[in-house]
Amino acid sequence: MPTKKLYGGIEAGGTKFVCVVASGPGHLVDEIRFKTTTPEETLGRAIQFFQPFVSSGQINVIGVGSFGPVDVNPESATYGFITATPKPGWSNTNVMGILRGALGIPIAFDSDVNVAGLGEYMWGVSKGCDPSLYLTVGTGIGGGYIQDGRSLIGLLSPEMGHLRIPHDRHVDPFVGICPFHDDCFEGLASGPAIEKRMGIPGAMIPENDPFWNIEAEYIASALVNYILTLSPKRIVIGGGVMQREFLFPRVRWRVRELLNGYVGSKSLLEHIDDYIVPPGLGNQSGSLGAIALAMQLDEEKDNPRI
Amino acid sequence: MPTKKLYGGIEAGGTKFVCVVASGPGHLVDEIRFKTTTPEETLGRAIQFFQPFVSSGQINVIGVGSFGPVDVNPESATYGFITATPKPGWSNTNVMGILRGALGIPIAFDSDVNVAGLGEYMWGVSKGCDPSLYLTVGTGIGGGYIQDGRSLIGLLSPEMGHLRIPHDRHVDPFVGICPFHDDCFEGLASGPAIEKRMGIPGAMIPENDPFWNIEAEYIASALVNYILTLSPKRIVIGGGVMQREFLFPRVRWRVRELLNGYVGSKSLLEHIDDYIVPPGLGNQSGSLGAIALAMQLDEEKDNPRI
Repeated sequence: MPTKKLYGGIEAGGTKFVCVVASGPGHLVDEIRFKTTTPEETLGRAIQFFQPFVSSGQINVIGVGSFGPVDVNPESATYGFITATPKPGWSNTNVMGILRGALGIPIAFDSDVNVAGLGEYMWGVSKGCDPSLYLTVGTGIGGGYIQDGRSLIGLLSPEMGHLRIPHDRHVDPFVGICPFHDDCFEGLASGPAIEKRMGIPGAMIPENDPFWNIEAEYIASALVNYILTLSPKRIVIGGGVMQREFLFPRVRWRVRELLNGYVGSKSLLEHIDDYIVPPGLGNQSGSLGAIALAMQLDEEKDNPRI
Repeated sequence: MPTKKLYGGIEAGGTKFVCVVASGPGHLVDEIRFKTTTPEETLGRAIQFFQPFVSSGQINVIGVGSFGPVDVNPESATYGFITATPKPGWSNTNVMGILRGALGIPIAFDSDVNVAGLGEYMWGVSKGCDPSLYLTVGTGIGGGYIQDGRSLIGLLSPEMGHLRIPHDRHVDPFVGICPFHDDCFEGLASGPAIEKRMGIPGAMIPENDPFWNIEAEYIASALVNYILTLSPKRIVIGGGVMQREFLFPRVRWRVRELLNGYVGSKSLLEHIDDYIVPPGLGNQSGSLGAIALAMQLDEEKDNPRI
């Protein structure tokens, strides 16, 4: 990086918050992690952490990647809010407004997956791949699509987790756990869906259990749909479920089998090991992505994009 | 339109070609339609039609929206080609190169659905809706996603027709006709799939036949996936199958039912009649879109986009 200017970054997860002061990977000045409790307490701790850096003029922009659903439409009255979340106490929380009000500096705000995707694009394994897709398969399933260094935002941030995919009930009679759609992708393949179906957490299911082929099938089906719709140049998959690394080769193999030569791209036909990959930044995609988001907003203040 | 400058446009369909000279809707100077036969004969007729307009200096750019698969990657060696098409004689046809070589002017080239989507965005029912999606459900199924007046091109033009969607074989035992994927969206719901399943063309199946609910289900499933992935602000559906206008209310109803309140947007919850709509330009989306594409290339020559 030509500059060592510092920024604040918040990975605002539903389980824990990670707050960092950094100028990029390898230039981490300070970090704090704490459990996500009430909005008052949690955002209060974040404010307390950043306050000295703001007062001393060391940081003047903070980026936030938040659990959702979030409102990322700048024209909306609830822009910067966590909206109707099932997480108790957090519905309609003006995350951006509370931080900006307390710290008095600009706050850049986007969804957790969009921000993680941005981190991977700026400094991780998607660098130079435009467009790229970041997918998380964990407590929930969500995707962020990065084009030209920006996340895709249309009618709303699409989130991508609730795709309708084939579900063969002879092979997998599980009905799904999505409160909206029962057996959508998230309802069938998220961490909680695995635990509900199998009676134990995914982390405890042995690698040779036939269930993992079912899981790989759902992930591959969704990836095929993303490929046919978004045509990313790289797909990064993070999240707790993907900690089981043996899933990667199974998913890649099944994606290629399902596409069956329809997409005549060497990335898919010959280099799929480099096409569907784990995060390059490990568990820092989100916090470093928040730094990248802050950096972008800071640069835009001087050079607005039309 | 501030200018009356004329452009050439080609809707290069697998069944017929439409060539126009126009400056926009309502300003059509000349038009010719002919059957798609061999590349030599068909492109020859197009060249013959445009030659006098080029020689006299009336047009200096032509836009082409082509049947596919097409190569729309400017960095590719086969940019501007129709690639591995099942249409006899057309595989690896350098459409852009042949036209440019014969006429000596710049040719703008994109897929038929991308160009139709651009036409609807510029002058049709998607005007002011950014991003927007154009879908055709006819001989094939394909989609074009328009953002900021440009079609989405990533690893390749995604085309979108071959999505994996739920297929309940108890309700619809038809195995599908896609040579790559059997029962993908196109394999289940295109015009030829309808005719193969029912023994008669879709145009002859009565409105009250229960099959149409199956067709509406597939279209709605795919739309849900596009909405959750691309988040368009309007969806335009053209193509022969959608000539059966009673499909529109059924598809809208089923999209809303399948989403089940997950997407909290008024466009979907309250104004779905304006969200999923037929083309505003009727059967001219493609030819006018080709004019718009030519116009863009002409403007870029003077003001290149970075």
